[in-house]
Amino acid sequence: MSLDKIYAPIREDLDKIEDGLRSIYQDSPPRISALLAHSLGASGKRVRPALVLLSGKSFSYNLECLLPMALAIEVLHTATLVHDDAIDNSPERRGRATINKLWGEDKAILLGDYLLAKAEELAAAAENLPLIRLFARTIKNIASGELQQSFDAFRLEQTRQQYLERISGKTASLLCLATESGAILSQAPPEMVTALREYGYNLGIAFQIVDDILDFIGDEKEMGKPVGSDLAEGTLTLPAMLILEHHPDDNPVRRLFQNEGDRQENIRRAIELFRDSPLVEECYRIAAEYQSKCCLNLKMLPDNASRRSLQALAEYVLARRK
Amino acid sequence: MSLDKIYAPIREDLDKIEDGLRSIYQDSPPRISALLAHSLGASGKRVRPALVLLSGKSFSYNLECLLPMALAIEVLHTATLVHDDAIDNSPERRGRATINKLWGEDKAILLGDYLLAKAEELAAAAENLPLIRLFARTIKNIASGELQQSFDAFRLEQTRQQYLERISGKTASLLCLATESGAILSQAPPEMVTALREYGYNLGIAFQIVDDILDFIGDEKEMGKPVGSDLAEGTLTLPAMLILEHHPDDNPVRRLFQNEGDRQENIRRAIELFRDSPLVEECYRIAAEYQSKCCLNLKMLPDNASRRSLQALAEYVLARRK
Repeated sequence: MSLDKIYAPIREDLDKIEDGLRSIYQDSPPRISALLAHSLGASGKRVRPALVLLSGKSFSYNLECLLPMALAIEVLHTATLVHDDAIDNSPERRGRATINKLWGEDKAILLGDYLLAKAEELAAAAENLPLIRLFARTIKNIASGELQQSFDAFRLEQTRQQYLERISGKTASLLCLATESGAILSQAPPEMVTALREYGYNLGIAFQIVDDILDFIGDEKEMGKPVGSDLAEGTLTLPAMLILEHHPDDNPVRRLFQNEGDRQENIRRAIELFRDSPLVEECYRIAAEYQSKCCLNLKMLPDNASRRSLQALAEYVLARRK
Repeated sequence: MSLDKIYAPIREDLDKIEDGLRSIYQDSPPRISALLAHSLGASGKRVRPALVLLSGKSFSYNLECLLPMALAIEVLHTATLVHDDAIDNSPERRGRATINKLWGEDKAILLGDYLLAKAEELAAAAENLPLIRLFARTIKNIASGELQQSFDAFRLEQTRQQYLERISGKTASLLCLATESGAILSQAPPEMVTALREYGYNLGIAFQIVDDILDFIGDEKEMGKPVGSDLAEGTLTLPAMLILEHHPDDNPVRRLFQNEGDRQENIRRAIELFRDSPLVEECYRIAAEYQSKCCLNLKMLPDNASRRSLQALAEYVLARRK
């Protein structure tokens, strides 16, 4: 199913998200406005705000609280991307030049801070104290996951458990926040809140595993960013871990991490080794396990259009090519 | 009056701030803990948490709400310092190596994000929705002030009004937040909240002007950081503006900003030109105007030990040498 069809039950409200994002940069001082427009206006998939809205749809759907929270989560997501690009010195994101590339790293750091604060301000507008705390804790989890990743860069000895913890912090925690807050703000009963939170977690893990696969096998033009960037930064993702496990004696990932031989050549050979191997299927099988868990989490929700959209989103995440 | 004497009415509670800061890094994952300990443990003057407590002292002083807010503001302050140092590539702060120097810029960016989130979490613990929003808005103001400064780097055409707006955002807004939140959380009557907010604003402006003077005339050993760093970053502070005004045809600031002649030599000569001139007095006179406003703001507060401390703090800020 296309994203357009998946979003059908919340189409009109997603347009209000775009309006909300637009008014953030239209209401800012001119020079800051240009940076905000560039970062918030990039045509993302808006998966996170969609999750907030779809998670509320089966219950007392109240756009007045859901809208600021959905906006808050998209703005927070944008803040993390702006800082990630500054850290990785990335030239491109979603096929466009990054803030750090266009305005320099200093502006990217400060814009990210501004966006983090704007996100908190929007989250506070939902007027739910426990959610405001959850929001702040989630930012801590994301930063913590990214810090762990940074500490573990170019380290070969890492377990799958460590990988899971890292992607749980840096990616799943935000998708979790989206589904959980959507459910809470719509007065979903506690067991449904739990189910949607777990759906968000499992979706996030599946999402990140597929992201990590695409960094090896994706099409650069379609993705709007170069492949092999995780390896270049020394991030040991699931595909790289499987290469290490299946070629224990010698392999281009080990050589890259141990700084042996040509860097670019090692990255190129690692991608080649993975691309044409059964390891691709193995990675997708692991991602599919999390997708199956998503479906189980949704079982207890009322069978309606929004549940079918959440189900289809879990399939979309696995099938996506960018 | 020494800071020790100024802090006398809140000494015990300031010790609890230190305990609170310590427990932030003791309760974190080991590798992140080391970074937190380094940044939060540095022996700052703790002016901002002291302002929260002193502002509450004349009213229904309730440490249960004041403590998390005082901690939140100190943690937020630390976050901004960590990001500032990363942006300026500063090697030293308060006489110790910076996070970016010791762990690299990527860790500094992520640690700053973690600290921003921790600050928000602490601010939320005071359970006051309008204050949570004010807290988020203040972070936006700080980032906005820093962004303006970054956009204006090496620009000669800047008005005093622009300078004031910039330092109001990047410095005064946080001191404002400290005094206003201390008053609000202690149920101060609205006119006292306003008086303390304005005291915080005027103190912040005086504080930053003195900071900008010390960047020209301070003692490097005492301050724990090199002089001339504002000029090196192209920041046009009040002392540099006065040099431009008093030597309109040619001067080392103009040459530095227009990239004429040797950079270091221009900085050295600008410092020399300012240091031995009546411009020092002129800058201090402007700072003293804001100090006088502080005293007026305090007039309506009950005459007690905490008011005398706030008064003495305004004098301290002007007299400080680091």
